[in-house]
Amino acid sequence: MAINTTASPLIDAPRGLAGVVVAETEIGDVRGSEGFYHYRRYPAVDLARTRSFEDVWHLLVHGELPDAERSARFTAQTAALRRLPAGVRSALPAIAAAGRGSGPLAGLRTGLSLLGAAQGFRPVYDMDAESRRADTVAACAAVPTLLTALYRLGHGLEPVEPREDLSYAANYLYMLTGSEPDPRRVRAVEQYLISTIDHGFNASTFTARVIASTGADIAACLTGAVGALSGPLHGGAPSRALDTLDAIGTPDRIDTWIRERVLAGDRIMGFGHAVYRTEDPRSRMLRETALGFGGPRVHFAVEVERRVEAILAELKPGRELHTNVEFYAGVVMELCGLPREMFTPTFAAARVVGWSANILEQAADPKIIRPVARYVGPEPERAAAATG
Amino acid sequence: MAINTTASPLIDAPRGLAGVVVAETEIGDVRGSEGFYHYRRYPAVDLARTRSFEDVWHLLVHGELPDAERSARFTAQTAALRRLPAGVRSALPAIAAAGRGSGPLAGLRTGLSLLGAAQGFRPVYDMDAESRRADTVAACAAVPTLLTALYRLGHGLEPVEPREDLSYAANYLYMLTGSEPDPRRVRAVEQYLISTIDHGFNASTFTARVIASTGADIAACLTGAVGALSGPLHGGAPSRALDTLDAIGTPDRIDTWIRERVLAGDRIMGFGHAVYRTEDPRSRMLRETALGFGGPRVHFAVEVERRVEAILAELKPGRELHTNVEFYAGVVMELCGLPREMFTPTFAAARVVGWSANILEQAADPKIIRPVARYVGPEPERAAAATG
Repeated sequence: MAINTTASPLIDAPRGLAGVVVAETEIGDVRGSEGFYHYRRYPAVDLARTRSFEDVWHLLVHGELPDAERSARFTAQTAALRRLPAGVRSALPAIAAAGRGSGPLAGLRTGLSLLGAAQGFRPVYDMDAESRRADTVAACAAVPTLLTALYRLGHGLEPVEPREDLSYAANYLYMLTGSEPDPRRVRAVEQYLISTIDHGFNASTFTARVIASTGADIAACLTGAVGALSGPLHGGAPSRALDTLDAIGTPDRIDTWIRERVLAGDRIMGFGHAVYRTEDPRSRMLRETALGFGGPRVHFAVEVERRVEAILAELKPGRELHTNVEFYAGVVMELCGLPREMFTPTFAAARVVGWSANILEQAADPKIIRPVARYVGPEPERAAAATG
Repeated sequence: MAINTTASPLIDAPRGLAGVVVAETEIGDVRGSEGFYHYRRYPAVDLARTRSFEDVWHLLVHGELPDAERSARFTAQTAALRRLPAGVRSALPAIAAAGRGSGPLAGLRTGLSLLGAAQGFRPVYDMDAESRRADTVAACAAVPTLLTALYRLGHGLEPVEPREDLSYAANYLYMLTGSEPDPRRVRAVEQYLISTIDHGFNASTFTARVIASTGADIAACLTGAVGALSGPLHGGAPSRALDTLDAIGTPDRIDTWIRERVLAGDRIMGFGHAVYRTEDPRSRMLRETALGFGGPRVHFAVEVERRVEAILAELKPGRELHTNVEFYAGVVMELCGLPREMFTPTFAAARVVGWSANILEQAADPKIIRPVARYVGPEPERAAAATG
């Protein structure tokens, strides 16, 4: 419904608010034409190569990279928050059973909402900055526990209790599988997680900020963001790129398959990005990670990438199309033993830190985000209105 | 984080997107300068005076008022959807227990999220219009059941099963109290519910539409909207106006209390609206409803209203300030026996229909809502970037 006041003339904006600046941010920037993105001025890919997930988490929500002492403290602090409150744990079997048909993001949505209530999260405008941050940290620390418990319960397995002696990434793999993970897999997953913490003002980040702008609690913001992330137009579904590899099947079928798709005008999942005009910097990093593992699957993926680019150059000259983050993210997660249904939830386990930073930034500047709609239906019956 | 592409120059918008048109709508319009609002061209106050909640619900989501036969069918259809799936019912005690400290909206948020998973709600872009509408109707029909069950469990009472032979409003009061409600109270609550189904493009409605624009399922959209509604800046907390009446206490203290507040520059809860420059049409209707009940409480409220307006005219000439919907909504809900903690949840039990209409409208026009942020932090270390 539209609001028209004589006081404020309406401003027409491009459809979907494309290109409309809704906030100023210090969290980061995506420079599509340069193939570059950063978190608080640090190139994200460098952070993924050299830092722990916890350090980058600290950078995002505290505003600076920690020194060694702070890093150890933050790592221990977050590790201690992994265990779920008893009231949430006891509800997980019911959440897992109810959500059997609707995927793990719906379970995370319910679990985070319940967690916020159980922790007594308060409206962000009623709290100081430190308490708000503490709520985001508590929520983020619990996400891997929620996700892995719901996954295991959904498959008839007992949840695995978190371990405080493992890193965020290692503990995530440990809770998922129940066994100590291989360090190379831990590091590969950690690099993926770091590289995907934040990436522009996407719809889930924007949703989190709109809800935060009302002063609602951290769980309300994160629950909305998880909901937005679950939408197919949001993107971020790394399993789709593997579906492309599966559909092609074998190296000898690559050319035929790709030519058919390109000539039919179909989109090839895992290729193309709304923002990057060059290679996606995440893709470049994750390709390296995948090549570190080696094996026929990785070489098949690299060959598919090479052939797609070559065939596009031939059939659609001038249209540069590179792999996006989904392509090698899917390959890397498969190499690390993650089941496909957990690819997008794993993405959420990183992005929740980015949402948190955005919520904190939004809450620090209280002003509700409230655009308008223009009424374009038939004129109301004004005779009747006079009696209203 | 910001997105900068060379392709699309950024557009600066007023803070909070105030006055920025983000959608065209046929659902309704608020005309603040005229003191008038309507749903699909029908004056909302007329609808509240002459129609059932179910009829107006039908108008919002089907686009037209039903004839007698359709009205009966829609009423029976929605009544049959009140019972919760077993998987949701069994989780309610855990949700109520976890949420003891965080209020009923947090419980509704969790309950709706769980309901959507249990019902297997699918992404809206994967469904036809009829199936989408069916999901919204199923969700809305369950809201009073969720709210009253969580309220009762939170107070150590057994939930009351819904009855199909009662109207939406009557069944709501019945499930809340466990006894057959007085028809005058039912009608008063029904008028309040109808008048508050939709009212402009507020932050919760916008949140629902942003999430819908990604193609997420109906529960994701509604869960986000409930979260935004729970924010203190969203407004819609009718219990605050009663707090004003309580603080004044007795008629002889009215003048002193109000003068002190006005001179101190304090806001008086229940007075003033961002959009209406005239009397709020909902306020006028609900005052009549309250006066139909009569009694000292109602006359006290009317006297407070009269004195606030008089004192403001004296102390702040030219600044017209009338009661907003909260003022008499609070009075009416109190007269109807609703506990104060259920005032905003009752609001949600109506507004969920407005959110639904907005979600359906948004989903019919697939385009993601995705504005941008402008990066204003320090320049990144470009030397390091070269290695990225």
